Amino acid sequence: MNAFGRLFRISIVGESHGPAVGVVIDGVPAGLPLSADDFAVDIERRKGGLQKGTTPRKEDDFPLFQTGLFNGHATGAPMTIFFENKNTRSGDYEKQRAVPRPGHADMVAHQKFGGYEDFRGGGHFSGRLTVGLVAAGVVAKKILGDISVKASILEIGGEPDIEKGLQKAIDAKDSIGGIVECRVSGLPAGMGEPFFDSVESLLAHAVFAIPAIRGVEFGSGFAAARMFGVEHNDAIENVSGKTRTNHAGGVVGGITNGNELVFRIAVKPTSSTPKEQLTLNWETGQQEEFSVKGRHDLCIALRVPVVLEAVTAAVLADLLLQVNAVPRVWKS
Amino acid sequence: MNAFGRLFRISIVGESHGPAVGVVIDGVPAGLPLSADDFAVDIERRKGGLQKGTTPRKEDDFPLFQTGLFNGHATGAPMTIFFENKNTRSGDYEKQRAVPRPGHADMVAHQKFGGYEDFRGGGHFSGRLTVGLVAAGVVAKKILGDISVKASILEIGGEPDIEKGLQKAIDAKDSIGGIVECRVSGLPAGMGEPFFDSVESLLAHAVFAIPAIRGVEFGSGFAAARMFGVEHNDAIENVSGKTRTNHAGGVVGGITNGNELVFRIAVKPTSSTPKEQLTLNWETGQQEEFSVKGRHDLCIALRVPVVLEAVTAAVLADLLLQVNAVPRVWKS
Amino acid sequence: MNAFGRLFRISIVGESHGPAVGVVIDGVPAGLPLSADDFAVDIERRKGGLQKGTTPRKEDDFPLFQTGLFNGHATGAPMTIFFENKNTRSGDYEKQRAVPRPGHADMVAHQKFGGYEDFRGGGHFSGRLTVGLVAAGVVAKKILGDISVKASILEIGGEPDIEKGLQKAIDAKDSIGGIVECRVSGLPAGMGEPFFDSVESLLAHAVFAIPAIRGVEFGSGFAAARMFGVEHNDAIENVSGKTRTNHAGGVVGGITNGNELVFRIAVKPTSSTPKEQLTLNWETGQQEEFSVKGRHDLCIALRVPVVLEAVTAAVLADLLLQVNAVPRVWKS
Amino acid sequence: MNAFGRLFRISIVGESHGPAVGVVIDGVPAGLPLSADDFAVDIERRKGGLQKGTTPRKEDDFPLFQTGLFNGHATGAPMTIFFENKNTRSGDYEKQRAVPRPGHADMVAHQKFGGYEDFRGGGHFSGRLTVGLVAAGVVAKKILGDISVKASILEIGGEPDIEKGLQKAIDAKDSIGGIVECRVSGLPAGMGEPFFDSVESLLAHAVFAIPAIRGVEFGSGFAAARMFGVEHNDAIENVSGKTRTNHAGGVVGGITNGNELVFRIAVKPTSSTPKEQLTLNWETGQQEEFSVKGRHDLCIALRVPVVLEAVTAAVLADLLLQVNAVPRVWKS
Repeated sequence: MNAFGRLFRISIVGESHGPAVGVVIDGVPAGLPLSADDFAVDIERRKGGLQKGTTPRKEDDFPLFQTGLFNGHATGAPMTIFFENKNTRSGDYEKQRAVPRPGHADMVAHQKFGGYEDFRGGGHFSGRLTVGLVAAGVVAKKILGDISVKASILEIGGEPDIEKGLQKAIDAKDSIGGIVECRVSGLPAGMGEPFFDSVESLLAHAVFAIPAIRGVEFGSGFAAARMFGVEHNDAIENVSGKTRTNHAGGVVGGITNGNELVFRIAVKPTSSTPKEQLTLNWETGQQEEFSVKGRHDLCIALRVPVVLEAVTAAVLADLLLQVNAVPRVWKS
Repeated sequence: MNAFGRLFRISIVGESHGPAVGVVIDGVPAGLPLSADDFAVDIERRKGGLQKGTTPRKEDDFPLFQTGLFNGHATGAPMTIFFENKNTRSGDYEKQRAVPRPGHADMVAHQKFGGYEDFRGGGHFSGRLTVGLVAAGVVAKKILGDISVKASILEIGGEPDIEKGLQKAIDAKDSIGGIVECRVSGLPAGMGEPFFDSVESLLAHAVFAIPAIRGVEFGSGFAAARMFGVEHNDAIENVSGKTRTNHAGGVVGGITNGNELVFRIAVKPTSSTPKEQLTLNWETGQQEEFSVKGRHDLCIALRVPVVLEAVTAAVLADLLLQVNAVPRVWKS
Repeated sequence: MNAFGRLFRISIVGESHGPAVGVVIDGVPAGLPLSADDFAVDIERRKGGLQKGTTPRKEDDFPLFQTGLFNGHATGAPMTIFFENKNTRSGDYEKQRAVPRPGHADMVAHQKFGGYEDFRGGGHFSGRLTVGLVAAGVVAKKILGDISVKASILEIGGEPDIEKGLQKAIDAKDSIGGIVECRVSGLPAGMGEPFFDSVESLLAHAVFAIPAIRGVEFGSGFAAARMFGVEHNDAIENVSGKTRTNHAGGVVGGITNGNELVFRIAVKPTSSTPKEQLTLNWETGQQEEFSVKGRHDLCIALRVPVVLEAVTAAVLADLLLQVNAVPRVWKS
Repeated sequence: MNAFGRLFRISIVGESHGPAVGVVIDGVPAGLPLSADDFAVDIERRKGGLQKGTTPRKEDDFPLFQTGLFNGHATGAPMTIFFENKNTRSGDYEKQRAVPRPGHADMVAHQKFGGYEDFRGGGHFSGRLTVGLVAAGVVAKKILGDISVKASILEIGGEPDIEKGLQKAIDAKDSIGGIVECRVSGLPAGMGEPFFDSVESLLAHAVFAIPAIRGVEFGSGFAAARMFGVEHNDAIENVSGKTRTNHAGGVVGGITNGNELVFRIAVKPTSSTPKEQLTLNWETGQQEEFSVKGRHDLCIALRVPVVLEAVTAAVLADLLLQVNAVPRVWKS
């Protein structure tokens, strides 16, 4: 199922070259104030159009409220937000039907859906779908109120100086990966449930819904595997649960402990690279040379932060609702 | 909710020092042959009792089938497997009620459950609960048939020579972390759904239900963030989807591609370390010195592989049922 | 949550006087052939426009496939079907904002959503939403193949002669209720799960999602409460499970037994009646006379059969997928 | 899946002649006070042992708290309550393996589970499982606080004088059905969601998990199908939503309206009747005479009220948690 959440539940729908992509959000508190303007900044951040290394495909991406909004407030009924696909050039893809692009979902989609998948531009698997996630994130952030969710690039191609990382890719005429960190401050302690609904379980579940993510780590993460216990443990300083260090990244036993929530994700290099590659032609059954046409990002990681914030905010909004920390009818 | 899965659904219940811990499994195909003997090897692997660095607490851990098994076969009704807690010494914990152990869930449990949590030995948060996961894994592995799920230690304390890693901890009189890898061969292509039910989402969700896990990465994982596109992409070699390399770790676009599934997890050092640490006394409101009494693991990572196999097998059994790859009534 | 189903999951969205109403269907088997033409008959049946006693509001109700359909086949990704609301006259409702219509959801919507509900024409509570259910039913019926789902009016206002029942209402210048029966033939035995996923539980859950339903009964239903055991029990005649009588209505122990599935629902009289009624004005806090303006059905039961077929087909499609009785990739 | 609920989730497990039956409850607020004594009255009501027409099988039915209870309070972790099966005489059933009892689930269980079902005494399909429901009801009623849930017999065999109804069965040497009504007072307005999570949908779902139920109706129910609109509509009297009449049974548009919740269920006659009946012998493939041995109820409806209260209370506890009307940490 392409849906996630218990009390704040989001479903994303659509295909890259279909009429539209969008999101259905069930569980938005009635009365939450919302306007198209609220979406502008995050939608724009996702486009990444001004950054070196991001795709030239341009969409207006104006949010069309189909349901659940009335007189500038959430009604309490499911909210549907659509984004039209205007700027599509399907011809790019149809010519290459039998030649799955390396690193893309073309081959698995074909295997799973028996050839009925919408293959144009990656269809339902396209990163285009993340605009729906971003829209859900805008709504979720409103629910979070003063809780701040901020994601930023830590490194590109191993370089903390991001310009340098991008230049490596440009020089190599190739695409490149990166690492993104998310920090959430202001969270109450006690969110999450032991084991299967641990905060890490829920966040990781949501994070891996973002295309191109290959890893996630909380607090010290993989570095913790090389630490001694006394190094990793965070000393509790007061009854609010504040710790001196934060190797746990704000989650212990699957539950938030009131400190800053910190986690990082690994983003693989954009699958579409200008370089020549080998792939299969499933009609001939032979491998053949492949080189990407069309519009693509040099470094998809650049566009990930706002999407990461969005899924994080969605998970946290759900948890806040579950622990009664936010009301069902909003007081604007 | 402490439950996970759509068609093969597991719930773990119990507390470290209560009468029992166990698992309820809903969706076991009727007719699946099972006996207590089937559980012996994995239950023993979880104890880790013979390994240097593992806890001396000993439990018989004999599986008590309360429901869902009849004449040596699954009935198709929910299966309940319990394990008695015999070897408990609660006095160890009651004395230190107001002093949450650093790195443990004592403090967050107190914050979340308002003091009503069963605090003895970590209560419901205890690693003791993983015996239920292992039991579910035994059942799931039977469903997987020829599909092989194998987890192993990659390094302890940064050392691929595991003995050396343990010795570092012994020398430091401290606990230590490690990295565990899981490999699954024989999986069909096409399992998983795009976005929220991606294979990575489901596996990561389940993996973070295991205590002490701080990160998960698939295929090249975090290293992918430093790779160029042409390095990371796996060239497809034939119509079955076999790729020459496997940087994707067997999952593309959230869907299995028929290659080996490969992922790794980071295990933090055991929270209970023999070293002195600082923590809070919430009665006095002051920090105080804390030193661990009781029985504990030097390196909890040593006991993780069988638990990792278990949750992995459970997720895959669910997915196999969802794609009709295994029958609902077993042909023994 | 306004969603239902495990493997075939439907969500209905929209408001009576918003831009559109629609349905999202997750789990449609890839390859299922679908065209707008497939929807025409059932959409038309729902309108009931030619029948005496049905509303004069006319909508084109042309299905707009936003996602999940490509080249005339389901893609396997979530399918979104929208229906534009063109024929709205909101002014009818805005004037009477503070005067909840008796029998309608106006008052409870106000209580639940704190005044933020879209109150025009019942908003999200409107029977208009059932067009999305009907669309889901068209898709579900395709999955059912040779299994036949047929609902029909049993009586109107207590009269098996339906014209006579309607005439009673016309004579009384009032609206009137009715009883609708659904019969499903060709179902395999063994669908459903004991207790919470019993076939009756799932069908009743879905049936009460239809507005105006006040009761549901399976097989002999309420009459069974007045029968002796030997009268009610159905004698099994052969190894396929065929029974001589069918007082059970095709479900025993919550599981289909391979006989015809038979159940009935009670539909209340249309809440909007031409008669004068007393209701509250919540601004004045006083009761006042109320008389309906606008377009309404004399007998909503007349339009229910196709909606009842739809939710029934949706539940059964889900169950067929769960018992592996239909494929995930359709062979057209 | 044999589980139900979103925030207060219950699963029932076990077989009639296995070691035990029981219930797992996820979502009990931490701190809720509970003792075995709390269960005595409802467990005793379910036995119905003193009433004419109820089964002589006697079980102690002492609740064994396996998990989730500590020092007399819920811990917030999943609660497991088991009831041992002591008083079993499996020999009664094994002799008749190939002869499914008319009206029972023996045949469908065989069809669904391929012969692997625990057939002794109905196995997992047995009414014995309802003791777990009753236990969950005791917990749920505590959460409901001052909200009162009361179910009572309305008629037996069509007779409002229940003794007379039972006598009819005794005279006929047969079993007999009945009707049970449930009334809930003190519910807040605004519980439930439009359409798929309507209060009627959720209650009906839960109600049909009780064995032998053949119908459910809310408020005027089936009688509404014969009413005019002006008769059925309830005039709202004040801003709290109180209505003069209560034909709606306290639910409008799927949402509670603050009036008394009223619904009725039809219970079929006990399937096991002393009368001779015809059934199939699936070994011979022939029909044969069947007459019940063993201990059975003359009128199962007599034992239903407490079970109906239990599932009703469970659904309402879940809804109260969803609308934040009860706390997650209980103040005793």
